[in-house]
Amino acid sequence: MIITVIGTGLIGGSMALDLKKRNIAQQIIGVDSNTEHIAKALELGIIDEVLDLKESAQKADLVIIAVPVDQAPSLLKEVLDHIKENAIVLDVGSIKANICKVADAHEKRSQFVACHPIAGTEYSGPEAAHYYLFDGKINIMTDVDKSSKSALKTATEVFEALKMKNIHMEAEEHDRHIAYVSHLSHITSFTLGLTVLDIEKDEKSIFNMAGSGFASTVRLAKSSPAMWTPIFNENKENLTSAIDSFIDKLNDLKQMIESGNTGETYRAIEESNQIKRILDGIELKNQAATLNN
Amino acid sequence: MIITVIGTGLIGGSMALDLKKRNIAQQIIGVDSNTEHIAKALELGIIDEVLDLKESAQKADLVIIAVPVDQAPSLLKEVLDHIKENAIVLDVGSIKANICKVADAHEKRSQFVACHPIAGTEYSGPEAAHYYLFDGKINIMTDVDKSSKSALKTATEVFEALKMKNIHMEAEEHDRHIAYVSHLSHITSFTLGLTVLDIEKDEKSIFNMAGSGFASTVRLAKSSPAMWTPIFNENKENLTSAIDSFIDKLNDLKQMIESGNTGETYRAIEESNQIKRILDGIELKNQAATLNN
Repeated sequence: MIITVIGTGLIGGSMALDLKKRNIAQQIIGVDSNTEHIAKALELGIIDEVLDLKESAQKADLVIIAVPVDQAPSLLKEVLDHIKENAIVLDVGSIKANICKVADAHEKRSQFVACHPIAGTEYSGPEAAHYYLFDGKINIMTDVDKSSKSALKTATEVFEALKMKNIHMEAEEHDRHIAYVSHLSHITSFTLGLTVLDIEKDEKSIFNMAGSGFASTVRLAKSSPAMWTPIFNENKENLTSAIDSFIDKLNDLKQMIESGNTGETYRAIEESNQIKRILDGIELKNQAATLNN
Repeated sequence: MIITVIGTGLIGGSMALDLKKRNIAQQIIGVDSNTEHIAKALELGIIDEVLDLKESAQKADLVIIAVPVDQAPSLLKEVLDHIKENAIVLDVGSIKANICKVADAHEKRSQFVACHPIAGTEYSGPEAAHYYLFDGKINIMTDVDKSSKSALKTATEVFEALKMKNIHMEAEEHDRHIAYVSHLSHITSFTLGLTVLDIEKDEKSIFNMAGSGFASTVRLAKSSPAMWTPIFNENKENLTSAIDSFIDKLNDLKQMIESGNTGETYRAIEESNQIKRILDGIELKNQAATLNN
């Protein structure tokens, strides 16, 4: 089929690469308001052709919206206005309630499938796009009962071609959960970066002392402000609850340490070690994906 | 030379492996109060012989103390009591002020060199020990003017054999800095683990949604409570200052997000992105180490 990718960065670009390689897309049309990105995407062979939004929507069998979450809802409305009768539209943003609300008000709601493939890196732009980014990972589809059966079938097949496992949930539930397992860890990384950079102003030699543990914990602080500012803003209610829970736990741990209660500190660390069973699950998924390539 | 390693876990065991392989040690004597660990270290060939503390101290040219930081100071005293005239003692703990204070009170102070090789993983015990753990990384030596020239020379050569770069600083300065670039990132990982595990009690499906970014940020939450409880306890003044700075920054960021001030949020993320230059430095060190093997 002919696929239009709106937003030719890490996610949109990586989807384009794999969907072409795996013969799902015969042709990839690229749309991007960033002229440097679109030129780069063309040069790298991520897209075959550049069109404006209206033309690309009219021509495509599938439109993938992969732009920052504050731009996606209005783009979705415009795309739905112009698509063909049997075409479908996906978005791949990290927040789902807002865009689903906009979709619900559109007469072509059933041609839209709201998605969130859980994949990415701390890099951005077309240069960051690469093959196999999605293999073995999870794609979340929300409010699927509002999509037509055929749109849902096509979307499911597209993500299966990316070797993803599809799971379904409500948009509100998605946004509440993702605040904890994705947005909060970005917040703690950004904050750790800010805290240590601030100290470094007076203590120049401090980073000689940083090792691989620090690097791992602060890695997400390299993430793009253009992507993450709107995510935090759009999910602010869920995210501030998550931050509040985190601060409560942090104050508890600080109190244990400050008062020299080593028994309680030990038990808190031991409890946190239970995260192993989750991390082992994530590593298994990644290993399986690597073995498949 | 004959080297005694007290504490045959990740750090002590990995030092033993490399010092043997690189012909610095003709013989490794192991000492460990954990009988399972010592048996495992012998079985894995990490150590050649098991002796009690006194005998092993009397026999060694070099003693390496690699035990949790609450046990190291009293062990150091005992080791210094028994070592030969030209033997030297190193410790490799993550806190330096306490052990240096104990050493200062001993008549054989000049035979001791206080060290902190910045290397490790989230795993522990002799099974976690491996070759090349230290290659290309930094070893910090503190209060070196209190060590004899020959002790310092031997210690320097030992860490150079491990392919480490030695840097010198005062113990108090070390403990203040390391609170920010190592202990704090462990605290934020443990806290992130506790926060998300707590939410999971009510929201069973939440971890289907966790990806590699979450895994990276929470990785250190797998670290051993037996190692980290005493570190946090011994460095509590510096660490609680670091936690307070972190909470201040986190509250600032939360306030920006809550009030919808996307301009300020964007700038804060952009500022945190400056951590790239630090992380690139750490990655360069690791790449150089990998290339050397």
